[in-house]
Amino acid sequence: MIIVLKKSATEKDAQHIVEAARAWGLKTNVSRGVERTIIGLIGDERIIHGKPLDMLPGVESVLAVLKPYKLAAAEGRPEGTRIKLAPVKKGGRTVVIGGPEVIVMAGPCSIESREMLLDLAQLVKKSGAHLLRAGAFKPRTSPYSFQGMGNEGLRLLAEAREAVGIHVITEVMDVRDLDAVAAVADVLQVGARNMQNFTLLKAIGKLHKPVMIKRGLANTMEELLMSAEYVMSEGNHEVLLCERGIRTFETMTRNTLDLAAVPVLQRESHLPVIVDPSHGTGHWDLVVPMARAAVAAGADGIMVEIHPKPAEAMSDGSQALLPKTYLKMMKELDRVARVLGRKVTR
Amino acid sequence: MIIVLKKSATEKDAQHIVEAARAWGLKTNVSRGVERTIIGLIGDERIIHGKPLDMLPGVESVLAVLKPYKLAAAEGRPEGTRIKLAPVKKGGRTVVIGGPEVIVMAGPCSIESREMLLDLAQLVKKSGAHLLRAGAFKPRTSPYSFQGMGNEGLRLLAEAREAVGIHVITEVMDVRDLDAVAAVADVLQVGARNMQNFTLLKAIGKLHKPVMIKRGLANTMEELLMSAEYVMSEGNHEVLLCERGIRTFETMTRNTLDLAAVPVLQRESHLPVIVDPSHGTGHWDLVVPMARAAVAAGADGIMVEIHPKPAEAMSDGSQALLPKTYLKMMKELDRVARVLGRKVTR
Amino acid sequence: MIIVLKKSATEKDAQHIVEAARAWGLKTNVSRGVERTIIGLIGDERIIHGKPLDMLPGVESVLAVLKPYKLAAAEGRPEGTRIKLAPVKKGGRTVVIGGPEVIVMAGPCSIESREMLLDLAQLVKKSGAHLLRAGAFKPRTSPYSFQGMGNEGLRLLAEAREAVGIHVITEVMDVRDLDAVAAVADVLQVGARNMQNFTLLKAIGKLHKPVMIKRGLANTMEELLMSAEYVMSEGNHEVLLCERGIRTFETMTRNTLDLAAVPVLQRESHLPVIVDPSHGTGHWDLVVPMARAAVAAGADGIMVEIHPKPAEAMSDGSQALLPKTYLKMMKELDRVARVLGRKVTR
Amino acid sequence: MIIVLKKSATEKDAQHIVEAARAWGLKTNVSRGVERTIIGLIGDERIIHGKPLDMLPGVESVLAVLKPYKLAAAEGRPEGTRIKLAPVKKGGRTVVIGGPEVIVMAGPCSIESREMLLDLAQLVKKSGAHLLRAGAFKPRTSPYSFQGMGNEGLRLLAEAREAVGIHVITEVMDVRDLDAVAAVADVLQVGARNMQNFTLLKAIGKLHKPVMIKRGLANTMEELLMSAEYVMSEGNHEVLLCERGIRTFETMTRNTLDLAAVPVLQRESHLPVIVDPSHGTGHWDLVVPMARAAVAAGADGIMVEIHPKPAEAMSDGSQALLPKTYLKMMKELDRVARVLGRKVTR
Repeated sequence: MIIVLKKSATEKDAQHIVEAARAWGLKTNVSRGVERTIIGLIGDERIIHGKPLDMLPGVESVLAVLKPYKLAAAEGRPEGTRIKLAPVKKGGRTVVIGGPEVIVMAGPCSIESREMLLDLAQLVKKSGAHLLRAGAFKPRTSPYSFQGMGNEGLRLLAEAREAVGIHVITEVMDVRDLDAVAAVADVLQVGARNMQNFTLLKAIGKLHKPVMIKRGLANTMEELLMSAEYVMSEGNHEVLLCERGIRTFETMTRNTLDLAAVPVLQRESHLPVIVDPSHGTGHWDLVVPMARAAVAAGADGIMVEIHPKPAEAMSDGSQALLPKTYLKMMKELDRVARVLGRKVTR
Repeated sequence: MIIVLKKSATEKDAQHIVEAARAWGLKTNVSRGVERTIIGLIGDERIIHGKPLDMLPGVESVLAVLKPYKLAAAEGRPEGTRIKLAPVKKGGRTVVIGGPEVIVMAGPCSIESREMLLDLAQLVKKSGAHLLRAGAFKPRTSPYSFQGMGNEGLRLLAEAREAVGIHVITEVMDVRDLDAVAAVADVLQVGARNMQNFTLLKAIGKLHKPVMIKRGLANTMEELLMSAEYVMSEGNHEVLLCERGIRTFETMTRNTLDLAAVPVLQRESHLPVIVDPSHGTGHWDLVVPMARAAVAAGADGIMVEIHPKPAEAMSDGSQALLPKTYLKMMKELDRVARVLGRKVTR
Repeated sequence: MIIVLKKSATEKDAQHIVEAARAWGLKTNVSRGVERTIIGLIGDERIIHGKPLDMLPGVESVLAVLKPYKLAAAEGRPEGTRIKLAPVKKGGRTVVIGGPEVIVMAGPCSIESREMLLDLAQLVKKSGAHLLRAGAFKPRTSPYSFQGMGNEGLRLLAEAREAVGIHVITEVMDVRDLDAVAAVADVLQVGARNMQNFTLLKAIGKLHKPVMIKRGLANTMEELLMSAEYVMSEGNHEVLLCERGIRTFETMTRNTLDLAAVPVLQRESHLPVIVDPSHGTGHWDLVVPMARAAVAAGADGIMVEIHPKPAEAMSDGSQALLPKTYLKMMKELDRVARVLGRKVTR
Repeated sequence: MIIVLKKSATEKDAQHIVEAARAWGLKTNVSRGVERTIIGLIGDERIIHGKPLDMLPGVESVLAVLKPYKLAAAEGRPEGTRIKLAPVKKGGRTVVIGGPEVIVMAGPCSIESREMLLDLAQLVKKSGAHLLRAGAFKPRTSPYSFQGMGNEGLRLLAEAREAVGIHVITEVMDVRDLDAVAAVADVLQVGARNMQNFTLLKAIGKLHKPVMIKRGLANTMEELLMSAEYVMSEGNHEVLLCERGIRTFETMTRNTLDLAAVPVLQRESHLPVIVDPSHGTGHWDLVVPMARAAVAAGADGIMVEIHPKPAEAMSDGSQALLPKTYLKMMKELDRVARVLGRKVTR
């Protein structure tokens, strides 16, 4: 931590800070310049994170030297994190997230019926994708919109998982549903609106279950890493980060997909980075180019929504791909991945 | 709902939409213009809110005519909502939120100790303010920061409420804590990060207890009203709306306090509108001018943070007012309120 | 400037930076901490502003200690800048901007006709306001919209100025029109879209004529101060700063009026700060509350638009006040100003 | 245009609008619904673009049916615009922008010296790229930063163009420099800060010279298309659109590169779309992944900055690629382009 003093600060002000630092167990380095005196605090500054040092007399500004995340930081595990999902059934596929394969998670936005879910699970499995995505609990802006099938949806998801032999990812919104969701899901999903639901993050941190945290609409990458840190600091180190668009002034897309988050998060952290171009754009015709772009940017995986009849979807139909568009996209993604020495399908 | 067809749309496309509308119980009005055919859907369009009408063949765009909120909308209660808090003790003050008095909610960010809380409660009471604010459960970006005193904090808050005879507002973060918090609080607070925690909103909707919902950092005013609608649609109509700053590119302030939200929300809704200039700016020296500005803009209330020693505060010390600054502000706020025919203190 | 080295940086990397600093005429202070080595550069760091120090080997990040603006910074003139406009006619009013009086600039968005301009000039003068605002050159998003009356408009403005005896402010968009505009205007206006038209700023810097620079829609306060610095570094120190709303995700208002800019800019700079609630909100019914709020926040002045028949205005009619609304507002502004020990009208 | 009346609107209000529409030469279609009366205006609504229809009595809101741009709209030229640059010298390469080849524009941010420019021009030419980019006039936030070599830079650029035989693109900031810049440049560049410098756009519209308009930091895609419309409405139809990042709350990147702009602009318009990942990210290590992503998203071209010694660059060194990194990127871009049936190099 670097403390810059005001031009008008006194020797007493500087002395006060040096003593405060000593009381926190930190050493100091005082540098008296032409225009400003600067005090460097030496030691693990995270112990004073959040302290209002700018309120001390004579202080002009406070500059952080270290990143506020530690467990999620790249330097702790430079080789990167790989998350393994054991086969659903004996002889089935082991999925490795964060390795050379680019992971695809695909399926309907919401679970709408048993038949539809089983059909799409089959399609997703056959396409070479790695996980089935499907929501039982749906966060909706309006209380009058379809809120998901809830526990009945979870039951159907468990059935599809078994019947088809495919790993599943689904969202948990309520800490009271956590055990029920964790009993079915291979990967838990924390939605963008819950990225800073710290209660939920701490509870997930106590499980042995991978979790994908979606970046909130107004959250910085640093805050996304701090949310991962919440889970990790409780003991659960299997965290996936997901970029799904941030909110900006642009209205031609539902959100602004921030693809630079892929290389930035991969530089800052050892955790795998997934991109959701469906929510990131909100329009089916933008999903395919943005999925290709995500893979080209180096994403470790992609999450997309599919629906057999988008115009009749109970949620987010505008961003759902028709099965045939999805299958064509899968081939393109594989070809792009191979430019980077990776692959999507076998 | 207005459906604009593409230039290339066929008569069959139009017919298809007319029939779909009929199936939803809506009438239609088809207008064939020079450049576009337009179909108006007549009836309560809210029943098709969220349907992906833009996925129907031939559709170029879909324009909503009605607002998606109904219970929160101004036209349902043009006289405005007044929320009464019965006296804490016999002979005490009845607080009316949404009436001619501009409400002040003041106190420490976090409950830090019994002594500090009681002292500030006394100060707030004497200053003429209406509610004591103080957090027992604190949402913090970092897992390493102080997370609040929790249930022990709630107990202290109940004690201060009784001892001093002042109404209290405090945040509930976890649906599992709801009963415990509601047992102490006169007004529940839903924080900005939980504005779209729909699980929590629904549970609060089932209580008979006023709730103040803070606008999320990336949430539109329409979404804030939809979150109020979640609570109201469950039966609880005592909702306060709180503007506390949105996230923008500007870094000289913690958030960008969107004061125009005051007149906009008052025009759109019948619910009282409170402003929090402490979180809205993040710096104590900006709190006073912004509090005055909020009252001048017509806010129904103000929430501010106070601390006897800001540099030692366990959370958000940079934005806390010293008691003497707070007391001076109270007088200014009262004078500004009187320009609008309102008042703060008696 | 503070340079933070990577954990992996070598002694040679540090040495390289120390030598580079010496070559730029700066001294250094090297502090070797537990986790990072930090090098402070001592001297006027502005001489290396914009240098890509983060590209030097071993550098993790670079932290600025001094603000990049110097002439506009508060510390250079702590008593504040007052800009005097000599009377238009003998015996007329001397207007002082930045003093105890809160300045009002009012008038039509565009000059539309001689009669309308003269009528409004009379109204503005009688109301006690200080400057007539009216645009001859209009920056419009669409090439098909009314682009202003141009030189003919300037001529009418000069006539109104003389006839009514009121100071005028008007926008200059094109450096080629600068002399013509400066011949009429008492204060030049640089519009939000031209805030970083550095060519125009430099040319204005060579004149002896006050200029009001409007903050761009995506510009930080620091950048606004840097634009003032452009003008001042050429010799013209009579600069007014104007907050007129920034662009955010909110759509219920045209822009998000960032009123906290008033106290922030007044703390950072000695230049007067004006607020334009007409462009800042885009709707006439929000202009009055936001004008009151601006004065309560401590603004040195207000700029508002008036039109006798807003529905027929050739530009920005939705945000124009009717004369009677404007006159009522003037009385309220004066009463709010007096709470702060200032006044609007005599 | 659709006009939605308030619930409280009278028959007289509706009649007034119908008559106003007739006066503008538009027909009307009045639809009386359960909750609202709606009036559709039939005809070319662009003639009333910008009129404050919401100020008419009884009007609740106004919804646009047609896009405000016409010449730039896709439907006018569904086959897309191809811009041909005749060979610099006899026997040289004809460059076609908007065709199957993905165009690469590369070079230094600023022209710094004759030698450096010639060396980089050779490198760019050999790499298979199509245009040399290099700035003579530089828009800088600070008046104390290097402002470009100006006319001497233009002279060097003309020399490099001739000597190496490569097309050039360079920025024009000031309308007074337009002829001089147009005499050298094969493609003019309008920078992000000048996207709404309507004076400059109109002047360029009168030339026969391709122009690339960069999207402003706070500008919507619709506004970018309106700026293209300014140029086109004056007669110059050779316009390239450039996405180069918008301003958001994220600070880990210089700007947020909005790659979804590529498919959106290609759907809305017939003009070629270029992406600048150097300014779009601000860090050299993000440029390569984002350049690949842009090509994967379907961009018609890429603009990138190169510097032999980034740490010594006079502007934007942090985002400059070393020559060897650039050459490696070119190969990757070509491979990604081929997945889409396009190519970069021969």
